[in-house]
Amino acid sequence: MMLKAIIDADILRETIEAIAALVSECRLHIENDGFSMLAVDTANVAMVKAVLQKTAFQSYEAESCEIGVDITKLRNILGTPGKTDQVKIELDETRHKLELSFMGYKYSVALLDTNTIRKEPNEPNIELPAKIIVPGMELNNAIKASMLISDKIALGVDTQEKNGPFFFMHADGDTDQINKTFGPTEVQFVNPVDSRSLFSIDYLKDMGKIFGKSASVEVHLGTDHPVKFIFDMSNGNAHFIYLLAPRIEAD
Amino acid sequence: MMLKAIIDADILRETIEAIAALVSECRLHIENDGFSMLAVDTANVAMVKAVLQKTAFQSYEAESCEIGVDITKLRNILGTPGKTDQVKIELDETRHKLELSFMGYKYSVALLDTNTIRKEPNEPNIELPAKIIVPGMELNNAIKASMLISDKIALGVDTQEKNGPFFFMHADGDTDQINKTFGPTEVQFVNPVDSRSLFSIDYLKDMGKIFGKSASVEVHLGTDHPVKFIFDMSNGNAHFIYLLAPRIEAD
Amino acid sequence: MMLKAIIDADILRETIEAIAALVSECRLHIENDGFSMLAVDTANVAMVKAVLQKTAFQSYEAESCEIGVDITKLRNILGTPGKTDQVKIELDETRHKLELSFMGYKYSVALLDTNTIRKEPNEPNIELPAKIIVPGMELNNAIKASMLISDKIALGVDTQEKNGPFFFMHADGDTDQINKTFGPTEVQFVNPVDSRSLFSIDYLKDMGKIFGKSASVEVHLGTDHPVKFIFDMSNGNAHFIYLLAPRIEAD
Repeated sequence: MMLKAIIDADILRETIEAIAALVSECRLHIENDGFSMLAVDTANVAMVKAVLQKTAFQSYEAESCEIGVDITKLRNILGTPGKTDQVKIELDETRHKLELSFMGYKYSVALLDTNTIRKEPNEPNIELPAKIIVPGMELNNAIKASMLISDKIALGVDTQEKNGPFFFMHADGDTDQINKTFGPTEVQFVNPVDSRSLFSIDYLKDMGKIFGKSASVEVHLGTDHPVKFIFDMSNGNAHFIYLLAPRIEAD
Repeated sequence: MMLKAIIDADILRETIEAIAALVSECRLHIENDGFSMLAVDTANVAMVKAVLQKTAFQSYEAESCEIGVDITKLRNILGTPGKTDQVKIELDETRHKLELSFMGYKYSVALLDTNTIRKEPNEPNIELPAKIIVPGMELNNAIKASMLISDKIALGVDTQEKNGPFFFMHADGDTDQINKTFGPTEVQFVNPVDSRSLFSIDYLKDMGKIFGKSASVEVHLGTDHPVKFIFDMSNGNAHFIYLLAPRIEAD
Repeated sequence: MMLKAIIDADILRETIEAIAALVSECRLHIENDGFSMLAVDTANVAMVKAVLQKTAFQSYEAESCEIGVDITKLRNILGTPGKTDQVKIELDETRHKLELSFMGYKYSVALLDTNTIRKEPNEPNIELPAKIIVPGMELNNAIKASMLISDKIALGVDTQEKNGPFFFMHADGDTDQINKTFGPTEVQFVNPVDSRSLFSIDYLKDMGKIFGKSASVEVHLGTDHPVKFIFDMSNGNAHFIYLLAPRIEAD
């Protein structure tokens, strides 16, 4: 169990925040080629996968191991350093601590016992035929706008309309509706297939705050199937996948 | 019942916010020459009148009708578009909806049954002899300052002092007082007549947030009489009147 | 009992805010050469001393007297004027009021009966051997960072390490630690003596908000002794001392 790494505070913070959007603790895999994690939220509705490549680090030396990490605490600590500060990360095996040093500060954070953290899920292998690429900010804005009308939102692709295909977002409240369509000039249709599923805005809004900072988000959709959001941050050195289970139209 | 109009989001938002300061729903009159409304607040203490002229719109086509509008909901929806975005407004008569479209978004908002909205008041015809013109921001600042001392504020004109006349604002708390006077170099005395009435700061502060954005507010005052604030926004295309009943000095 | 003074709103506000960090009311001494006060907080844990020299004022005329002042109220009132506005201060002896005038506003604030305000403490004469000078912002940042880990923080000087001496700050939470050291290039060691005492972060964070605005703070420390923070504001015309009692390491 060994780790000595240096990374821009900004990159580490973005990664931790992306994980913190769904879980408050996780098993972090430390490998030769970087960090990775996979976890489902407590309600089993959403999944987050994060990979932080060795190339994201200024320097990186590690032996493979798995540690339990309090994600919420790391996020709070990483609120302190500025954009350009560098964070030194080390494992103190004997004291069972993760040590973060920056700007003359040295934090020693107790590792969590991995046995107390829920087991990692199998990464689901779901076929989601519709694939589009959307600017993250636009997608986040559409989610925020829908919150005024409803707590559920339908996402889908419509290939039947002329001037299309369209990526649409539709929220249906008790008395009001909101509809937002993205045409071929606004999003890139990698695989335009008719699809439509309903999702909880509660989850989407937490995810949207994160992928809203990404220039482009790959969205995979089916009909009454989960949605998958795939995006990079930190100049392509950090990769993320969010998966969200659908809600039933009837409820 | 027909309406097709396009307007800068900013202008529509200012108008809706000015109404929302006093009421959460209203009867909106759609006429050939623009929108208008008149309503009293639920406590019957304050009145708002708003007129949005046809000239405020980029394009405007309407048949005369009266619709019931959820003002709070419109204000929330209009929080989304930017200053320069344009909003398309349409009535969907069959579905009984108001449709607002901007930036690829389309909101369908259920109209309210006008029978469920309290009847419009008669516009009171009160003689308020003192008339002055005050910069909106100054008036709003004075209201905000008074809130530290009391929940009531006296507004009036004093023509007896030398170097006057003065427009004054006086708040008398349990142990403290605040006094603010505006002399002839700061406000314009259209009709300087001695006057003084007491008002609830709760109402004034909501009104002040709105007319604080207007370069000049016409204030009409009497003694133990209501106060009337008359102001324009949107380059003179939107006209507003707030009327506020006085409180009794003794309470 | 006479006072007629004019002062920049900014300078008066900074002084009042520094006092308000610890007490909500105090006895203010008005002397020929300026204002001064000394008070302990309600829990008897912290002391504040403030001196506002005559040179801080635009004009100053006073007869010696002691008045009771509602510090919280003054702070709220002084939130209104801008940085460059001037405040006129007068005592109205007959009405027992302090009058503050600025920008056409005139506040009359009731003086407090000095008999109802707790007696001033004797200024303690404690020997604190370690003396260092720290940039206020750095000190405040270190306090804020420690709040994530614990509600207590140890401050001290370590002369035993090489490359030292060091001024250190150490917080020990239930499972985590944070350590921050300032070396000779970051702080000035006027008198580097080994020392270490434990303090409540609750108090330090209120003090830190104030001295964080000062370019340099003189810190006096002992072992299991109080800490003293000495700093100036308003171009050296306002002097402040905060004294904070230590906590026992065991609790």
